[in-house]
Amino acid sequence: MTAADSGPDGGLVVLPVRGVPEVRAADDLAALLVTAAAADPGVGGLRDGDVLVVTQKVVSKAEDRLVAVDPDDPLSHKPLVEHESVRILRRRGDLIISETKHGFVCANAGIDLSNIERGWAALLPVDPDRSARRLRDGIRGKAGVTLAVIVSDTFGRAWRRGVTDVAIGCAGIAAVVDLRGTTDAMGRELQVTEIAVVDELTAAADLVMGKATNVAAAVIRGVDPSWFREGSVRDEIVRSPAEDLFR
Amino acid sequence: MTAADSGPDGGLVVLPVRGVPEVRAADDLAALLVTAAAADPGVGGLRDGDVLVVTQKVVSKAEDRLVAVDPDDPLSHKPLVEHESVRILRRRGDLIISETKHGFVCANAGIDLSNIERGWAALLPVDPDRSARRLRDGIRGKAGVTLAVIVSDTFGRAWRRGVTDVAIGCAGIAAVVDLRGTTDAMGRELQVTEIAVVDELTAAADLVMGKATNVAAAVIRGVDPSWFREGSVRDEIVRSPAEDLFR
Repeated sequence: MTAADSGPDGGLVVLPVRGVPEVRAADDLAALLVTAAAADPGVGGLRDGDVLVVTQKVVSKAEDRLVAVDPDDPLSHKPLVEHESVRILRRRGDLIISETKHGFVCANAGIDLSNIERGWAALLPVDPDRSARRLRDGIRGKAGVTLAVIVSDTFGRAWRRGVTDVAIGCAGIAAVVDLRGTTDAMGRELQVTEIAVVDELTAAADLVMGKATNVAAAVIRGVDPSWFREGSVRDEIVRSPAEDLFR
Repeated sequence: MTAADSGPDGGLVVLPVRGVPEVRAADDLAALLVTAAAADPGVGGLRDGDVLVVTQKVVSKAEDRLVAVDPDDPLSHKPLVEHESVRILRRRGDLIISETKHGFVCANAGIDLSNIERGWAALLPVDPDRSARRLRDGIRGKAGVTLAVIVSDTFGRAWRRGVTDVAIGCAGIAAVVDLRGTTDAMGRELQVTEIAVVDELTAAADLVMGKATNVAAAVIRGVDPSWFREGSVRDEIVRSPAEDLFR
């Protein structure tokens, strides 16, 4: 695989972006990502039409969403969980499943302590769609490329064991691609086909990011150009309590 | 992107397998997939270390899981939904969310009518892990390659709009990769990191399959070799009602 691959012939390429340094509050994350992608020979720089998936952790660090917690108390972030939630759905032992201010339903309001310096907890970005738009605009300004940005986080699922990465914010790409009304291969109208492509792209990115190797971003090449429009996780993915059957 | 790409340098390649013909009951699906992958220049044949994702629809057709329904009654498959379910969780209008005999929680027991001839409905395979093992073994016998097979289906999510593809069966690959006890980049033990890699791989595959273009399979190259062990969606992903907070 070389930097010349752009995913023709209906295929995709998913590449880790290595070498993003430890991110600090007020760092210019767009500049760090542009530099790391240019220096990584597997990526060969960011390009028009790329989808850049960035983990919540580095976005929260750059946006100074770190809060001091008691390093000797493993439950010291629990008051933060309640503060960041608008509704507690379930508790079991130390686990809290809640609805965050953004409308996400997840464990511990998306707050965790891994890959953060001891004594600190990282909150989710205040508005992850806006975080994605800022990164997209910053990268366009610095590198002159028009790409899509997704901010990812790791969530559990109600009915399935194991976690997967999902999108919490996006810019420059549809969150959901609606195939309702198009026909299937039998010429009959398709039924339920609102595909959450940002979540599928984010899941694909996680496969190359690992959890302990400090890869904070991935690039996906070859994505269907018709998906590149202004999208929003909040507007397209977040399900309101009124339409949800399980809250 | 050429057939010589095998996803080095930490990256993945995701390729549609085009040219799988319309599948009929008792067709040798393994042979059809081997032939289509060999004839598709983007794929260049199946190889050792590939992950082959195959949609439930063609697996169900090959396993003769089709049931006749009244073509003029759009709700004629609803009695099938109840028959294939062990527990109805929610009803809203025509929508039924239930737990299937396999333990999957999904809409309409995984039964749908799209991409099926009019007057027929496709049930899920009886044992999708076994379906995946059969395909894996059949491909090994015919093409002499050792690869992993995932059977995919399209499910909704409790808390998020839009559907994504998830794994309903797998063979030759871990369903969940457990990183508990490994350390993060700060040298601290990671907390919740049981990653449902089969679901992330399946989501990645869906990005190249489309819904109406008759692409029934995709190949993923460059997958971490340590994930290739005998896995099971039923044993690793299906959450028992006892440990689930929302049933």
